[in-house]
Amino acid sequence: MIAVHAGAGYHEDDIEKLCASALRESGFDIVRAVMILESDARTNCGLGSNLTISGRVECEAAYMISQNLSFGAVAAVSNTENPVFAAKKIVEEQIEKGSASSLVQPMVLAGYGADRFVENLGLQICANEELVTDLASKDYEKALRNLAEMAKMRMDTVGAVSIEPSGLSKSCVSSGGILLKRDGRLGHSPQFGSAIWSEQRGTKSISISVSGCGEALTRVHFAQNLAEKILDWDDSNSLLMVLVRDFFEKHFRNSRLLEGFSSDRILAGGIVLFKDGSINELVVFHNTQHFAFACSNGKSIRRYKSSLPAGSALVCNSFGC
Amino acid sequence: MIAVHAGAGYHEDDIEKLCASALRESGFDIVRAVMILESDARTNCGLGSNLTISGRVECEAAYMISQNLSFGAVAAVSNTENPVFAAKKIVEEQIEKGSASSLVQPMVLAGYGADRFVENLGLQICANEELVTDLASKDYEKALRNLAEMAKMRMDTVGAVSIEPSGLSKSCVSSGGILLKRDGRLGHSPQFGSAIWSEQRGTKSISISVSGCGEALTRVHFAQNLAEKILDWDDSNSLLMVLVRDFFEKHFRNSRLLEGFSSDRILAGGIVLFKDGSINELVVFHNTQHFAFACSNGKSIRRYKSSLPAGSALVCNSFGC
Repeated sequence: MIAVHAGAGYHEDDIEKLCASALRESGFDIVRAVMILESDARTNCGLGSNLTISGRVECEAAYMISQNLSFGAVAAVSNTENPVFAAKKIVEEQIEKGSASSLVQPMVLAGYGADRFVENLGLQICANEELVTDLASKDYEKALRNLAEMAKMRMDTVGAVSIEPSGLSKSCVSSGGILLKRDGRLGHSPQFGSAIWSEQRGTKSISISVSGCGEALTRVHFAQNLAEKILDWDDSNSLLMVLVRDFFEKHFRNSRLLEGFSSDRILAGGIVLFKDGSINELVVFHNTQHFAFACSNGKSIRRYKSSLPAGSALVCNSFGC
Repeated sequence: MIAVHAGAGYHEDDIEKLCASALRESGFDIVRAVMILESDARTNCGLGSNLTISGRVECEAAYMISQNLSFGAVAAVSNTENPVFAAKKIVEEQIEKGSASSLVQPMVLAGYGADRFVENLGLQICANEELVTDLASKDYEKALRNLAEMAKMRMDTVGAVSIEPSGLSKSCVSSGGILLKRDGRLGHSPQFGSAIWSEQRGTKSISISVSGCGEALTRVHFAQNLAEKILDWDDSNSLLMVLVRDFFEKHFRNSRLLEGFSSDRILAGGIVLFKDGSINELVVFHNTQHFAFACSNGKSIRRYKSSLPAGSALVCNSFGC
């Protein structure tokens, strides 16, 4: 089971087709799928990321695997189009070196150190200007002229999740951040428990990848707390979709942790992959205008661009997988 | 009520005296008190911070205020000795601009952007080398030669908490990070809910500042979850100290979120300031060798260096305040 998303946002083009082709070309590997999206100028991550207030590209990405709940992230990275590869390497180093090393293995590297880490991995290093696309520059100029127009611009982060037949689960996320963000601003990707979660507990496995307003998602540790609710869930008469919807309302939209936020900032969209024995389910939710994704059971690939109907506060749908 | 700590670690000198003098000289202001500690070469923050694996200083600091649970942090800052001042400014901007601004106010700035933010605040900017002290260099050289010796070196982060008579609570933390950390590594300071927490709920106010192994503290969102337990606490027949000790055992030492960690990394020490009507209490806990602090009710100043007795797993003490 694997799914790839292009984030909670406003999509004019058929971005779900891009998700499907990234899934296919990746050989059903979540990190490779996200690297394809990072290198595509149409998505808000890697090449073509939203520009900061000073016109730079600063990316972030994270990776998590259910084995020991290992988590790795890079933030404020400015010289590569593939930060998700570095995030995965941080996790691999944690697993390989683990407690055998005298040094604490880092979870998150930012800025200068993250760029040097990327360089040492042999990823292609580029000047920051090479990551700036025409589309990103146009959005930036337009946003500087008219801040009110920003709501329709690309706020979306890409991500992917998978659960293997063994129950091993993996998740990742990659983001170019919000348009006109302050240089150096960390979004939700590098904050543990906010953007992604992968856990295996008994017969249950879960993988989550969430996009949206980073500051809001971080405050409620969105992915981790949603996973906890789902793993604790024992009402087999109810639907997973209802649980996710309920979490969204109670623990996000109406969270006391977000009292200082205006409601138009309390934005999120994401995918939840859940497996319990023979049950395989994909739940997709968003309160942004659009949310595009593709998913596969390893055979066929399906894709969908979900839209928020007028008057609705949230879309939350479940799919067999 | 105000308290200042010099972190969970191993202190050979009378660092509690430094806490007391910082408290006095600050005029009982937590940020000014921490700035004094940052500028003192004996503490592991600002000037004299532990060096990264490549020999640089990279600092982080955070500030939180109970008003709207506002939180701000800077991370991987390399050109100032007073990062806590920048963290406070991020919170002040959130409160001033709030949702009136079209732009999302950042919670965390890292690296390049954090250094530029600091520069624009008018703080003194210095070359990275100017933050490197002889003591830090000696520790670094020694650690490179013998990684096993690191356990006795300075891992400690400084911090301070206060609760005003009105119930308004504030907390902050400032850290030079762990010795030989990877460049760009983020500790627990900039991660929301990990190092500090300040909240006012009804008649109750709480402020927490925690030091220790950042990766472990971040995984359990230590400060936020401890605050939640205390604010939910309604057993007036029990002692706050017992609650803190219980949290430390169940939700930190034995947390399933730390299964991949060796036990000698599950290190923490911190202060909890709690007020409920006329009750004013300070709880101090640590499972490191030492924990030094000073506290005041606005009149006298008391100081203490707490030591872990041989064979004990944890020290947890309560003080009237």
